[in-house]
Amino acid sequence: MVSCSRVNVRYAETDKMGIVHHSVYPIWYEIARTDFCKIAGFTYAKMEEVGVMTPLVELGSKYYKPAYYDDELEVKAKIVKLTPARIEFRYEVYNVKDNALINTGFTTHALVGKNLRPINMKKMYPELWNLISNSME
Amino acid sequence: MVSCSRVNVRYAETDKMGIVHHSVYPIWYEIARTDFCKIAGFTYAKMEEVGVMTPLVELGSKYYKPAYYDDELEVKAKIVKLTPARIEFRYEVYNVKDNALINTGFTTHALVGKNLRPINMKKMYPELWNLISNSME
Amino acid sequence: MVSCSRVNVRYAETDKMGIVHHSVYPIWYEIARTDFCKIAGFTYAKMEEVGVMTPLVELGSKYYKPAYYDDELEVKAKIVKLTPARIEFRYEVYNVKDNALINTGFTTHALVGKNLRPINMKKMYPELWNLISNSME
Amino acid sequence: MVSCSRVNVRYAETDKMGIVHHSVYPIWYEIARTDFCKIAGFTYAKMEEVGVMTPLVELGSKYYKPAYYDDELEVKAKIVKLTPARIEFRYEVYNVKDNALINTGFTTHALVGKNLRPINMKKMYPELWNLISNSME
Repeated sequence: MVSCSRVNVRYAETDKMGIVHHSVYPIWYEIARTDFCKIAGFTYAKMEEVGVMTPLVELGSKYYKPAYYDDELEVKAKIVKLTPARIEFRYEVYNVKDNALINTGFTTHALVGKNLRPINMKKMYPELWNLISNSME
Repeated sequence: MVSCSRVNVRYAETDKMGIVHHSVYPIWYEIARTDFCKIAGFTYAKMEEVGVMTPLVELGSKYYKPAYYDDELEVKAKIVKLTPARIEFRYEVYNVKDNALINTGFTTHALVGKNLRPINMKKMYPELWNLISNSME
Repeated sequence: MVSCSRVNVRYAETDKMGIVHHSVYPIWYEIARTDFCKIAGFTYAKMEEVGVMTPLVELGSKYYKPAYYDDELEVKAKIVKLTPARIEFRYEVYNVKDNALINTGFTTHALVGKNLRPINMKKMYPELWNLISNSME
Repeated sequence: MVSCSRVNVRYAETDKMGIVHHSVYPIWYEIARTDFCKIAGFTYAKMEEVGVMTPLVELGSKYYKPAYYDDELEVKAKIVKLTPARIEFRYEVYNVKDNALINTGFTTHALVGKNLRPINMKKMYPELWNLISNSME
């Protein structure tokens, strides 16, 4: 499964170079992740409610072209790896006006409890585990 | 008491107009508040630990001159009003290079518990109340 | 004219209190402003292209209820005042799930050129002036 | 040369998990970069004045431990690679209270002109090139 999210570049997201600041892309990835999880049937909010937190352990981002104020972007997300303690998402950001790929990235998340200690999702939350596994197909 | 905090303008805080985005000033006020509380003897972190949260109920800001990347600024803070359920801070932001006043603002905070319900600080936390009262002189 | 914009609360917009940080609301106002201008026929981007910048001179915000991660919000915007050198917008933020008014605010903008010096919009950009005037009805 | 910058965690930098949001670390890297350049004798602001922009082409970040509100952090920066069209910085973030390494990262920057087109820094700005080269020792 691949999710597609739409984002409009906010004025506050630009910097004095006139382009979107690079620290904004991880925030867009997060929007895409939120949407992906909703479509796959396990909302982020619900995960946290049952006690599963997903703090980042690694982030990577490649910037091919700048994005400008008010540009409409499409952020595609998918899960590429899943272990009982880790999950990895990949992202592609496109500028809608010319369909140009402007950025790619990934985030790796630990699966932890509310105390930020590791959990084994497969054992503790088998239903959630299945939903996520199925979303990879 | 008046506290003085130093802030260096971050690149990410600028926008495509080439100046600091207006949404950043409330964040600087917060830094000033943090410093004010420390000096007055009641750290923000400790307040939250004992269960006192201070969410904003009102914010006001006046922008006289722009701030630019890497400018060094001084943010002055003081408490101007205190009731058992409310507290009001005032701020002045100066550009260090020419001592120009570039912004003034205020924030009004509710005094609430961890459940975000109002508390009577004077009764429930008399020691904290006294520290804050004394910091107004 | 009143514009209506939809915003979904981003994870990054929350703070350790578990609610949206107050500095985010001015960014939502800006989204609403962008949408308002588009509907009224004078895009923000085009204004800057012809050389009209609209830096903030004053901001005010009142917080009635908190907003939470993934809440869907509606931000209404309208222009309430227009002079050749100033423009004032008012905003109302509603939580879509219960239609509760959670925040109101205003922003006052100077009308300046690219050098950040004041301009007389009525004289210099009569067409733009008319579009904005008409949007107030 | 290695630069050391101090950062205090801002309240607005935390998220509802109670820890610093991962998108903030690239902003801290930027502060470290600004400081590094100042110490090495080529300020970021001056580089942009003479017409050299350094947009990101790649970013990587590894998160070992969370950072909390009001934590004092040390961000170390150094240049690890320099070609006429690229420059790569590496960063280490330490929590001052226990000297624990909480995050490492890198940023790769293109060297471009104000029009965002590539430049050959070695040829066009030999003095700047020498300053940067020397800072690697």
